[in-house]
Amino acid sequence: MSKYDKLVTNAAGRVVPTILNGKPAVPYMGVGKFKPTGRKAAPLIATCADYPADGNKVVESLKDALIRSGLKDGMTISTHHHFRNGDLVSNQIFDIAKEMGVKDLMWFPSASFPCQEPLTKYLEDGTIHHIEGSMNGALGRFTSHGKMKGLGVLRSHGGRYQAVQDGEVHIDIAVIAAPSSDPFGNSNGVNGPAACGLLGFALADSQYADKVIVVTDNLVPFPCIPWQINGNLVDYVVVMDKVGIPEKIVSGTTEVTKSPDRLLLADWTAQFCDEAGILHDGFSFQAGAGGTSLSIGIYFAELLRERGWKARFARGGSNKYLVKMLEDGLTEYILDGQTFDLEGVRSIRENPHHVNTSPFTSYNYHGKGNFASLVDVTILGATEVDVHFNANVVTHSDGYLLHGIGGWQNCLFAKCTILPIPLFRDRIPVILDEVTTLCGPGELIDVIVTERGIAINPLRTDLIEKMKNSALPIKTIQELKTEAEKICGVPEKPKFSDEIVAVVKWVDGTVIDSIRRVID
Amino acid sequence: MSKYDKLVTNAAGRVVPTILNGKPAVPYMGVGKFKPTGRKAAPLIATCADYPADGNKVVESLKDALIRSGLKDGMTISTHHHFRNGDLVSNQIFDIAKEMGVKDLMWFPSASFPCQEPLTKYLEDGTIHHIEGSMNGALGRFTSHGKMKGLGVLRSHGGRYQAVQDGEVHIDIAVIAAPSSDPFGNSNGVNGPAACGLLGFALADSQYADKVIVVTDNLVPFPCIPWQINGNLVDYVVVMDKVGIPEKIVSGTTEVTKSPDRLLLADWTAQFCDEAGILHDGFSFQAGAGGTSLSIGIYFAELLRERGWKARFARGGSNKYLVKMLEDGLTEYILDGQTFDLEGVRSIRENPHHVNTSPFTSYNYHGKGNFASLVDVTILGATEVDVHFNANVVTHSDGYLLHGIGGWQNCLFAKCTILPIPLFRDRIPVILDEVTTLCGPGELIDVIVTERGIAINPLRTDLIEKMKNSALPIKTIQELKTEAEKICGVPEKPKFSDEIVAVVKWVDGTVIDSIRRVID
Repeated sequence: MSKYDKLVTNAAGRVVPTILNGKPAVPYMGVGKFKPTGRKAAPLIATCADYPADGNKVVESLKDALIRSGLKDGMTISTHHHFRNGDLVSNQIFDIAKEMGVKDLMWFPSASFPCQEPLTKYLEDGTIHHIEGSMNGALGRFTSHGKMKGLGVLRSHGGRYQAVQDGEVHIDIAVIAAPSSDPFGNSNGVNGPAACGLLGFALADSQYADKVIVVTDNLVPFPCIPWQINGNLVDYVVVMDKVGIPEKIVSGTTEVTKSPDRLLLADWTAQFCDEAGILHDGFSFQAGAGGTSLSIGIYFAELLRERGWKARFARGGSNKYLVKMLEDGLTEYILDGQTFDLEGVRSIRENPHHVNTSPFTSYNYHGKGNFASLVDVTILGATEVDVHFNANVVTHSDGYLLHGIGGWQNCLFAKCTILPIPLFRDRIPVILDEVTTLCGPGELIDVIVTERGIAINPLRTDLIEKMKNSALPIKTIQELKTEAEKICGVPEKPKFSDEIVAVVKWVDGTVIDSIRRVID
Repeated sequence: MSKYDKLVTNAAGRVVPTILNGKPAVPYMGVGKFKPTGRKAAPLIATCADYPADGNKVVESLKDALIRSGLKDGMTISTHHHFRNGDLVSNQIFDIAKEMGVKDLMWFPSASFPCQEPLTKYLEDGTIHHIEGSMNGALGRFTSHGKMKGLGVLRSHGGRYQAVQDGEVHIDIAVIAAPSSDPFGNSNGVNGPAACGLLGFALADSQYADKVIVVTDNLVPFPCIPWQINGNLVDYVVVMDKVGIPEKIVSGTTEVTKSPDRLLLADWTAQFCDEAGILHDGFSFQAGAGGTSLSIGIYFAELLRERGWKARFARGGSNKYLVKMLEDGLTEYILDGQTFDLEGVRSIRENPHHVNTSPFTSYNYHGKGNFASLVDVTILGATEVDVHFNANVVTHSDGYLLHGIGGWQNCLFAKCTILPIPLFRDRIPVILDEVTTLCGPGELIDVIVTERGIAINPLRTDLIEKMKNSALPIKTIQELKTEAEKICGVPEKPKFSDEIVAVVKWVDGTVIDSIRRVID
């Protein structure tokens, strides 16, 4: 089987394959243009007659559970990333597969982290055929060198749910590491020594996989309350010493920035939201876990406090700053998708106004709506932006695939999307004529905030009108690009071979761009 | 289309049709014998592109929502019964259908109540073709007289979920009355003037119906927290003045019994559980809302308090007595399926140890286990029991269909099932050679407690052994039957025509018995 086949030019002008790892795919058609016609994936009907009446699904070991689940060549194995860089389970699955001589597995993580770098050896020896999911850091570099046997397929968090729901990806075995579980498989992320907060990224896996294995280091008597993963969907429960290192769930970037440039971005972004009337009593926002985003959240909190206003909700990833907002009464709710620090974990355990969500509720584009488009403003990052406001979030200016999409594409559907980004990084301009990899269509990106000025998407005449008397340095994106090039020169383009090593899916499952092999 | 066709004798020796309202059905094969092989029903894939980006799904009226949902002849319309006898929405749906001239609808309620008696006129005029769901009181009498155009199909709460999940029943339009909803359709039963507690009976409807309409009298800004119905599954939201009368959710029977005979049943049942070792620190139980059951709960609470013990969980239907147990620290959790009084509503709103469940978690036999079989002891009622411990819960001794199954069949899977029942009602013995309608196979019914003695199912040699030195009046079921007949005589059998008017499904979707037209 070839990695890909049948190239076409999609609606964004990008050349993409329409056969991915042997399976057909639809090329990107534009935002909201592709209309699905089929039915959702239909899991096998189970029967209680095949499960222990006393509800005790505990088996001896992860290996035992994998054998009982029928682990064999070519299967798709899924994991979640709520432990982030503290995950202790994913690598073990493939150690066992290797030991059993199983080959050509597809790994379908909700995201990958540096702690999973050891899996490169299984990509090399054929235990793992390919990854569909984020290929960060070492796994990304491996992919960018064309060394992965299959095609990498990158999806947003919502796109991952959509792909499973729609039957594009069939999970044979889902392995769900859970900080607490009962013997029936009801499990949560809020209690136990490895508490990581949430388990929502494993929701699709639990609903649609043929076999579902819960792995825990904190077995509690039935019922495990609350449960975010439903035991009625679980086949086996495995108890091991330690499923994750909770300290390492803390993203390396979850501290407010001290950089004066980044603080300026944060300040201008908050000021922009205020002047444009986006910030108001009862407003809602989502900001990531990066230093700039966190600072923006703090500025929002200060403004709300000054005015005696309150946000209706803040979308997580949660962190200590959001938790403080909630506890200070500056937001009514946190709607959380993952916790970025231990304060987030504490809060979601204790506070009924800190509410768990999932890629289904928040991000799935193939639902009857989702939460992302209800958010007043979302603050996101990007590795590159082009003069049409298109943005890239997966490859770097050197062409290497180094990041997953996360919820980034899904969040673009907010009522206003702002990217506060430095005008250049390591003396390489961030605003280009054309992004290396198209991840987000420009029509969904409203405002670019840089330390040299703010560009508003010409489509947003309403925002341009509102800001026309602002003291903020509103410029065109072309002006910003010119300014960057005046300082750094026009950047050299990375060198690629024709070979496609990965594709980026849009939120509706269509293929929006291809990522090519890097020539060093 | 004939109501039914192709009669066979099933594994319980009952003659049942295998074509029900034109659709094939499997005859009952024995407990745990039928193994499903197919896949779950696959709902249509939706897309956010077809739903308002601001999440506002509010439409003008229920009629508007039904029209937008494409209401037409022959459709299946579902409703839930969390308002019990205070439901104000179900009748309106069919008033609108009648007004629109729509015919031959199938009504698929999770249960029916006397307040829905007005629907008889739509059964008569052809607006409603037939009901699949409980046909209580007037609707049952109508059915028993053979006047319904289609065949009645009775399912347990779990069987209803199973039927929808497995695609046996396809819901075209689900109408979900909700005490609180946001414009996106996230809704709950705990807040608002019509708070009824839970909405879990509408879960399958929300997940599998083509169109989902939420009707509320308490529209709150997004997000409606908590949500039990997920807005991502909802098409339209309708606001009306009043969706239910919360006082009428109180079941007529939710007061402890004052009858000395009933108190004796309760006392003996609790004593039996104690002596048999079923009652222990960390045990679990489910008792219904009838006067005897409530009294048993109170006896359990007293015993726990005396010993310094605590139940791990009590299964609801919740009521003020269970809430008191929870608040007194005599049970760790209430796992609740529906609230039977306003104290239950208050508690589930306030207390995180009062946890909502659904027919999916608790009762669906076609899951990877369910909660019902994890309960140490369940206390149920019956209209009749036979000498093989088979029981009837839907027809009366006069042959009339007067009750739905509720969760009764599902609860039989508890580790011990006890039926405390009077030996006779209105001078008619309750223990017979053969039950009029078979609802629960004797092998799942462990103990019959009557005011003249207690019979243990001979299959439960463990219980017989444990009780051999008990002072309780342990007798054989034959002895109890003889005793009853000595007092009342052998009861006359009701007179039936050959015509089948309804069938009773077993928890796995197979047909366990037929109900015939009554000849007065």
